[in-house]
Amino acid sequence: MDDKSPKTDSLYSSQLLQTLDYSNAVTSPAKLATNLVLRPLQSDDYNRGFLDLLSQLTKVGTIDENKFQERFHQMKSNGNYYITVVEDVDTSRVICSATLFTEYKFIHSAAMRGRIEDVVVDSEYRGQRLGHLIIETLKLMAQSLDCYKLTLDCRDEMIEWYTKLGFIAIPTRSNMLTIRFTD
Amino acid sequence: MDDKSPKTDSLYSSQLLQTLDYSNAVTSPAKLATNLVLRPLQSDDYNRGFLDLLSQLTKVGTIDENKFQERFHQMKSNGNYYITVVEDVDTSRVICSATLFTEYKFIHSAAMRGRIEDVVVDSEYRGQRLGHLIIETLKLMAQSLDCYKLTLDCRDEMIEWYTKLGFIAIPTRSNMLTIRFTD
Repeated sequence: MDDKSPKTDSLYSSQLLQTLDYSNAVTSPAKLATNLVLRPLQSDDYNRGFLDLLSQLTKVGTIDENKFQERFHQMKSNGNYYITVVEDVDTSRVICSATLFTEYKFIHSAAMRGRIEDVVVDSEYRGQRLGHLIIETLKLMAQSLDCYKLTLDCRDEMIEWYTKLGFIAIPTRSNMLTIRFTD
Repeated sequence: MDDKSPKTDSLYSSQLLQTLDYSNAVTSPAKLATNLVLRPLQSDDYNRGFLDLLSQLTKVGTIDENKFQERFHQMKSNGNYYITVVEDVDTSRVICSATLFTEYKFIHSAAMRGRIEDVVVDSEYRGQRLGHLIIETLKLMAQSLDCYKLTLDCRDEMIEWYTKLGFIAIPTRSNMLTIRFTD
Protein backbone atom coordinates (compact mmCIF):
# COMPACT_ATOMS: atom_id res chain seq x y z
CA MET A 1 0.00 0.00 0.00
CA ASP A 2 1.20 3.46 -0.88
CA ASP A 3 -0.40 5.97 1.48
CA LYS A 4 0.46 8.79 -0.91
CA SER A 5 -1.63 7.40 -3.77
CA PRO A 6 -4.67 9.58 -4.43
CA LYS A 7 -7.92 8.07 -3.22
CA THR A 8 -10.17 6.85 -6.01
CA ASP A 9 -13.89 7.00 -5.26
CA SER A 10 -16.53 4.98 -7.03
CA LEU A 11 -19.81 6.81 -7.65
CA TYR A 12 -21.62 3.79 -6.19
CA SER A 13 -20.57 0.46 -4.75
CA SER A 14 -19.25 -1.86 -7.44
CA GLN A 15 -20.73 -4.73 -5.43
CA LEU A 16 -24.10 -3.76 -6.87
CA LEU A 17 -22.82 -4.79 -10.30
CA GLN A 18 -21.59 -8.15 -8.98
CA THR A 19 -25.05 -9.13 -7.80
CA LEU A 20 -26.81 -8.75 -11.18
CA ASP A 21 -28.18 -11.86 -12.88
CA TYR A 22 -27.81 -11.51 -16.66
CA SER A 23 -29.34 -14.90 -17.47
CA ASN A 24 -32.32 -13.30 -19.23
CA ALA A 25 -30.33 -10.44 -20.77
CA VAL A 26 -29.28 -10.22 -24.43
CA THR A 27 -25.63 -9.98 -23.39
CA SER A 28 -23.50 -9.94 -20.25
CA PRO A 29 -20.14 -8.68 -18.95
CA ALA A 30 -18.77 -12.21 -19.41
CA LYS A 31 -18.85 -11.57 -23.16
CA LEU A 32 -16.66 -8.46 -22.95
CA ALA A 33 -13.24 -8.50 -24.62
CA THR A 34 -10.52 -8.98 -21.99
CA ASN A 35 -9.38 -5.34 -22.27
CA LEU A 36 -12.86 -4.00 -21.42
CA VAL A 37 -14.16 -3.55 -17.87
CA LEU A 38 -17.69 -2.61 -16.78
CA ARG A 39 -17.70 -0.57 -13.57
CA PRO A 40 -19.13 2.50 -11.79
CA LEU A 41 -17.86 5.94 -12.78
CA GLN A 42 -14.79 6.83 -10.72
CA SER A 43 -13.53 10.16 -9.43
CA ASP A 44 -10.40 9.84 -11.58
CA ASP A 45 -12.28 9.27 -14.85
CA TYR A 46 -11.77 12.93 -15.67
CA ASN A 47 -8.31 11.77 -16.79
CA ARG A 48 -9.68 8.85 -18.80
CA GLY A 49 -11.56 10.90 -21.36
CA PHE A 50 -14.98 10.66 -19.75
CA LEU A 51 -15.94 14.17 -20.83
CA ASP A 52 -14.54 13.63 -24.34
CA LEU A 53 -16.83 10.62 -24.55
CA LEU A 54 -19.87 12.67 -23.46
CA SER A 55 -19.01 15.25 -26.12
CA GLN A 56 -19.85 12.57 -28.72
CA LEU A 57 -23.39 12.74 -27.35
CA THR A 58 -24.05 16.45 -26.81
CA LYS A 59 -22.53 19.76 -25.77
CA VAL A 60 -20.30 19.37 -22.72
CA GLY A 61 -18.83 22.88 -22.41
CA THR A 62 -15.98 23.80 -20.13
CA ILE A 63 -15.55 21.60 -17.07
CA ASP A 64 -12.21 21.75 -15.29
CA GLU A 65 -11.13 19.00 -12.93
CA ASN A 66 -12.36 20.86 -9.85
CA LYS A 67 -15.81 21.25 -11.37
CA PHE A 68 -15.82 17.58 -12.34
CA GLN A 69 -14.91 16.57 -8.80
CA GLU A 70 -17.53 18.85 -7.30
CA ARG A 71 -20.28 17.41 -9.50
CA PHE A 72 -19.05 13.84 -8.93
CA HIS A 73 -19.22 14.28 -5.17
CA GLN A 74 -22.63 15.99 -5.34
CA MET A 75 -23.93 12.96 -7.20
CA LYS A 76 -22.23 10.56 -4.81
CA SER A 77 -23.53 12.21 -1.65
CA ASN A 78 -26.95 12.46 -3.27
CA GLY A 79 -26.89 8.68 -3.52
CA ASN A 80 -29.28 8.30 -6.45
CA TYR A 81 -26.83 8.39 -9.36
CA TYR A 82 -25.53 5.21 -10.94
CA ILE A 83 -23.34 6.29 -13.84
CA THR A 84 -21.90 3.10 -15.28
CA VAL A 85 -19.01 2.96 -17.73
CA VAL A 86 -16.87 0.61 -19.77
CA GLU A 87 -13.13 1.28 -19.66
CA ASP A 88 -10.60 0.03 -22.18
CA VAL A 89 -7.81 -0.80 -19.74
CA ASP A 90 -5.27 -1.07 -22.58
CA THR A 91 -5.71 2.63 -23.37
CA SER A 92 -7.05 3.79 -19.97
CA ARG A 93 -10.01 5.41 -21.71
CA VAL A 94 -13.69 5.37 -20.81
CA ILE A 95 -15.39 4.24 -24.03
CA CYS A 96 -19.02 3.73 -23.03
CA SER A 97 -21.22 5.38 -20.42
CA ALA A 98 -24.84 5.59 -19.33
CA THR A 99 -26.59 7.06 -16.30
CA LEU A 100 -29.25 5.44 -14.17
CA PHE A 101 -30.75 7.63 -11.54
CA THR A 102 -33.56 6.93 -9.15
CA GLU A 103 -36.28 9.41 -8.29
CA TYR A 104 -38.19 9.32 -5.00
CA LYS A 105 -41.96 9.18 -5.28
CA PHE A 106 -44.92 9.29 -2.92
CA ILE A 107 -47.10 7.50 -5.48
CA HIS A 108 -47.00 3.70 -5.87
CA SER A 109 -46.45 3.17 -2.11
CA ALA A 110 -43.57 5.66 -1.93
CA ALA A 111 -41.77 3.98 -4.80
CA MET A 112 -38.68 4.81 -6.85
CA ARG A 113 -38.79 5.60 -10.55
CA GLY A 114 -35.64 4.78 -12.50
CA ARG A 115 -34.44 6.93 -15.38
CA ILE A 116 -31.81 6.26 -18.00
CA GLU A 117 -29.89 9.25 -19.33
CA ASP A 118 -26.85 10.16 -21.39
CA VAL A 119 -26.12 6.87 -23.13
CA VAL A 120 -23.01 6.97 -25.32
CA VAL A 121 -20.63 4.50 -26.93
CA ASP A 122 -17.33 5.78 -28.35
CA SER A 123 -17.58 5.86 -32.14
CA GLU A 124 -14.55 3.57 -32.45
CA TYR A 125 -16.17 0.88 -30.32
CA ARG A 126 -19.62 0.69 -31.90
CA GLY A 127 -20.92 -2.64 -33.22
CA GLN A 128 -19.64 -4.56 -30.20
CA ARG A 129 -22.99 -4.57 -28.34
CA LEU A 130 -21.59 -2.31 -25.62
CA GLY A 131 -24.79 -0.26 -25.76
CA HIS A 132 -26.81 -3.43 -25.22
CA LEU A 133 -24.60 -4.38 -22.29
CA ILE A 134 -24.88 -1.04 -20.54
CA ILE A 135 -28.66 -0.81 -20.98
CA GLU A 136 -29.18 -4.39 -19.79
CA THR A 137 -27.00 -3.54 -16.80
CA LEU A 138 -29.01 -0.44 -15.91
CA LYS A 139 -32.27 -2.37 -16.34
CA LEU A 140 -31.08 -5.03 -13.89
CA MET A 141 -29.83 -2.38 -11.46
CA ALA A 142 -33.13 -0.46 -11.58
CA GLN A 143 -35.00 -3.66 -10.80
CA SER A 144 -32.55 -4.55 -8.05
CA LEU A 145 -33.03 -1.06 -6.56
CA ASP A 146 -36.82 -1.69 -6.45
CA CYS A 147 -37.83 0.82 -9.08
CA TYR A 148 -41.47 0.33 -10.08
CA LYS A 149 -40.66 1.51 -13.59
CA LEU A 150 -37.75 2.65 -15.71
CA THR A 151 -38.05 5.28 -18.41
CA LEU A 152 -35.93 7.15 -20.90
CA ASP A 153 -36.49 9.67 -23.61
CA CYS A 154 -34.99 9.23 -27.06
CA ARG A 155 -34.89 10.29 -30.65
CA ASP A 156 -37.24 8.67 -33.17
CA GLU A 157 -34.44 6.66 -34.76
CA MET A 158 -33.59 4.97 -31.43
CA ILE A 159 -37.10 3.71 -30.66
CA GLU A 160 -36.60 0.42 -32.50
CA TRP A 161 -33.27 -0.22 -30.76
CA TYR A 162 -34.73 0.36 -27.28
CA THR A 163 -37.83 -1.65 -28.12
CA LYS A 164 -35.63 -4.69 -28.74
CA LEU A 165 -34.32 -4.19 -25.20
CA GLY A 166 -37.83 -4.32 -23.72
CA PHE A 167 -38.81 -0.65 -23.60
CA ILE A 168 -42.21 0.27 -24.97
CA ALA A 169 -43.93 3.42 -26.12
CA ILE A 170 -47.17 3.14 -24.13
CA PRO A 171 -49.94 4.25 -26.50
CA THR A 172 -51.31 7.77 -25.82
CA ARG A 173 -48.85 8.48 -22.98
CA SER A 174 -45.32 8.50 -24.32
CA ASN A 175 -44.70 12.17 -24.99
CA MET A 176 -41.80 14.19 -23.67
CA LEU A 177 -42.21 17.96 -23.75
CA THR A 178 -39.47 20.52 -23.23
CA ILE A 179 -38.72 24.13 -22.42
CA ARG A 180 -35.13 25.16 -23.13
CA PHE A 181 -33.78 27.98 -20.97
CA THR A 182 -30.25 28.03 -22.40
CA ASP A 183 -28.39 26.42 -25.32
CA MET B 1 -44.65 30.24 21.35
CA ASP B 2 -45.66 26.77 22.47
CA ASP B 3 -42.56 24.62 22.76
CA LYS B 4 -44.72 21.51 22.69
CA SER B 5 -46.10 22.21 19.21
CA PRO B 6 -44.80 19.68 16.67
CA LYS B 7 -42.16 21.07 14.34
CA THR B 8 -43.37 21.60 10.79
CA ASP B 9 -40.76 21.24 8.10
CA SER B 10 -41.00 22.70 4.62
CA LEU B 11 -39.61 20.51 1.85
CA TYR B 12 -37.68 23.54 0.58
CA SER B 13 -37.35 27.16 1.65
CA SER B 14 -40.53 29.10 0.99
CA GLN B 15 -38.32 32.13 0.32
CA LEU B 16 -37.63 30.62 -3.09
CA LEU B 17 -41.30 31.19 -3.96
CA GLN B 18 -41.14 34.82 -2.80
CA THR B 19 -38.39 35.66 -5.27
CA LEU B 20 -40.27 34.57 -8.41
CA ASP B 21 -41.26 37.20 -10.96
CA TYR B 22 -44.60 36.28 -12.54
CA SER B 23 -44.79 39.35 -14.80
CA ASN B 24 -44.53 37.21 -17.96
CA ALA B 25 -46.61 34.31 -16.61
CA VAL B 26 -50.22 33.59 -17.57
CA THR B 27 -51.28 33.87 -13.92
CA SER B 28 -49.77 34.55 -10.50
CA PRO B 29 -50.34 33.83 -6.80
CA ALA B 30 -51.78 37.33 -6.47
CA LYS B 31 -54.85 36.08 -8.37
CA LEU B 32 -55.56 33.27 -5.90
CA ALA B 33 -58.77 33.33 -3.89
CA THR B 34 -58.06 34.49 -0.35
CA ASN B 35 -58.57 30.98 1.08
CA LEU B 36 -55.89 29.47 -1.20
CA VAL B 37 -52.17 29.50 -0.38
CA LEU B 38 -49.29 28.43 -2.64
CA ARG B 39 -46.40 26.95 -0.65
CA PRO B 40 -43.86 24.11 -0.43
CA LEU B 41 -45.05 20.69 0.69
CA GLN B 42 -44.88 20.43 4.49
CA SER B 43 -44.15 17.49 6.75
CA ASP B 44 -47.66 17.73 8.23
CA ASP B 45 -49.46 17.60 4.87
CA TYR B 46 -50.09 13.91 5.48
CA ASN B 47 -52.98 15.18 7.62
CA ARG B 48 -54.21 17.59 4.96
CA GLY B 49 -55.17 14.99 2.40
CA PHE B 50 -52.00 15.17 0.30
CA LEU B 51 -52.09 11.45 -0.48
CA ASP B 52 -55.83 11.53 -1.21
CA LEU B 53 -55.08 14.24 -3.73
CA LEU B 54 -52.34 12.14 -5.39
CA SER B 55 -54.80 9.24 -5.61
CA GLN B 56 -56.78 11.36 -8.10
CA LEU B 57 -53.71 11.10 -10.33
CA THR B 58 -52.57 7.50 -10.00
CA LYS B 59 -52.19 4.56 -7.65
CA VAL B 60 -50.86 5.64 -4.27
CA GLY B 61 -51.06 2.38 -2.31
CA THR B 62 -50.58 2.11 1.42
CA ILE B 63 -48.44 4.82 3.01
CA ASP B 64 -48.74 5.27 6.76
CA GLU B 65 -47.58 8.46 8.43
CA ASN B 66 -44.15 7.02 9.29
CA LYS B 67 -43.55 6.08 5.66
CA PHE B 68 -44.71 9.51 4.55
CA GLN B 69 -42.31 11.18 6.99
CA GLU B 70 -39.44 8.96 5.91
CA ARG B 71 -39.94 9.75 2.23
CA PHE B 72 -40.46 13.47 2.98
CA HIS B 73 -37.16 13.65 4.85
CA GLN B 74 -35.33 11.62 2.18
CA MET B 75 -36.48 14.18 -0.37
CA LYS B 76 -35.60 17.09 1.89
CA SER B 77 -32.10 15.87 2.69
CA ASN B 78 -31.60 15.04 -0.98
CA GLY B 79 -32.20 18.72 -1.67
CA ASN B 80 -33.41 18.38 -5.26
CA TYR B 81 -37.16 18.05 -4.69
CA TYR B 82 -39.48 21.03 -4.92
CA ILE B 83 -42.99 19.68 -4.39
CA THR B 84 -45.26 22.70 -4.44
CA VAL B 85 -48.87 22.68 -3.32
CA VAL B 86 -51.95 24.86 -2.96
CA GLU B 87 -53.78 24.56 0.37
CA ASP B 88 -57.35 25.61 0.98
CA VAL B 89 -56.86 27.08 4.45
CA ASP B 90 -60.63 27.11 5.07
CA THR B 91 -60.72 23.31 4.91
CA SER B 92 -57.04 22.59 5.73
CA ARG B 93 -56.79 20.45 2.60
CA VAL B 94 -54.06 20.30 -0.04
CA ILE B 95 -55.99 20.71 -3.29
CA CYS B 96 -53.26 21.06 -5.93
CA SER B 97 -49.75 19.66 -6.15
CA ALA B 98 -46.87 19.32 -8.60
CA THR B 99 -43.26 18.21 -8.27
CA LEU B 100 -40.19 19.92 -9.67
CA PHE B 101 -36.98 18.06 -9.22
CA THR B 102 -33.53 18.89 -10.47
CA GLU B 103 -31.13 16.35 -11.90
CA TYR B 104 -27.35 16.79 -11.82
CA LYS B 105 -25.59 16.55 -15.17
CA PHE B 106 -22.02 16.55 -16.40
CA ILE B 107 -23.16 17.69 -19.85
CA HIS B 108 -23.88 21.37 -20.62
CA SER B 109 -21.08 22.56 -18.29
CA ALA B 110 -22.24 20.39 -15.38
CA ALA B 111 -25.78 21.75 -15.62
CA MET B 112 -29.05 20.88 -13.94
CA ARG B 113 -32.05 19.48 -15.79
CA GLY B 114 -35.43 20.24 -14.30
CA ARG B 115 -38.32 17.78 -14.42
CA ILE B 116 -41.97 18.24 -13.66
CA GLU B 117 -43.83 15.26 -12.23
CA ASP B 118 -47.10 14.30 -10.60
CA VAL B 119 -49.27 17.31 -11.43
CA VAL B 120 -52.74 17.13 -9.94
CA VAL B 121 -55.60 19.50 -9.16
CA ASP B 122 -58.44 18.32 -6.91
CA SER B 123 -61.48 17.60 -9.06
CA GLU B 124 -63.57 20.06 -7.04
CA TYR B 125 -61.15 22.91 -7.75
CA ARG B 126 -60.66 22.53 -11.50
CA GLY B 127 -61.39 25.45 -13.83
CA GLN B 128 -59.70 27.96 -11.51
CA ARG B 129 -56.36 27.98 -13.37
CA LEU B 130 -54.61 26.34 -10.41
CA GLY B 131 -52.84 24.01 -12.85
CA HIS B 132 -51.59 27.02 -14.79
CA LEU B 133 -50.40 28.65 -11.58
CA ILE B 134 -48.48 25.63 -10.36
CA ILE B 135 -46.81 24.97 -13.72
CA GLU B 136 -45.86 28.63 -14.15
CA THR B 137 -44.42 28.51 -10.63
CA LEU B 138 -42.32 25.42 -11.35
CA LYS B 139 -41.10 26.95 -14.63
CA LEU B 140 -39.94 30.07 -12.79
CA MET B 141 -38.32 27.99 -10.05
CA ALA B 142 -36.48 25.78 -12.57
CA GLN B 143 -35.11 28.87 -14.27
CA SER B 144 -34.21 30.44 -10.95
CA LEU B 145 -32.37 27.22 -10.00
CA ASP B 146 -30.31 27.51 -13.24
CA CYS B 147 -31.77 24.50 -15.03
CA TYR B 148 -30.70 24.48 -18.68
CA LYS B 149 -33.98 22.82 -19.60
CA LEU B 150 -37.21 21.62 -18.08
CA THR B 151 -39.08 18.56 -19.27
CA LEU B 152 -42.13 16.52 -18.47
CA ASP B 153 -43.89 13.54 -19.92
CA CYS B 154 -47.62 13.54 -20.51
CA ARG B 155 -50.61 11.92 -22.11
CA ASP B 156 -51.62 12.87 -25.65
CA GLU B 157 -54.62 14.85 -24.45
CA MET B 158 -52.43 17.11 -22.28
CA ILE B 159 -50.03 18.16 -25.06
CA GLU B 160 -52.15 21.14 -26.14
CA TRP B 161 -52.50 22.36 -22.55
CA TYR B 162 -48.76 22.23 -21.88
CA THR B 163 -48.00 23.79 -25.26
CA LYS B 164 -49.96 26.86 -24.23
CA LEU B 165 -47.64 27.09 -21.22
CA GLY B 166 -44.54 27.12 -23.43
CA PHE B 167 -43.58 23.46 -23.59
CA ILE B 168 -42.84 22.01 -27.01
CA ALA B 169 -42.60 18.57 -28.52
CA ILE B 170 -39.23 18.88 -30.25
CA PRO B 171 -39.63 17.14 -33.62
CA THR B 172 -38.00 13.68 -33.86
CA ARG B 173 -36.88 13.68 -30.20
CA SER B 174 -39.87 13.76 -27.92
CA ASN B 175 -40.43 10.09 -27.15
CA MET B 176 -40.68 8.60 -23.70
CA LEU B 177 -40.18 4.84 -23.45
CA THR B 178 -40.98 2.67 -20.44
CA ILE B 179 -40.36 -0.67 -18.80
CA ARG B 180 -42.78 -1.47 -15.98
CA PHE B 181 -41.42 -3.76 -13.28
CA THR B 182 -44.51 -3.72 -11.02
CA ASP B 183 -48.09 -2.45 -11.23
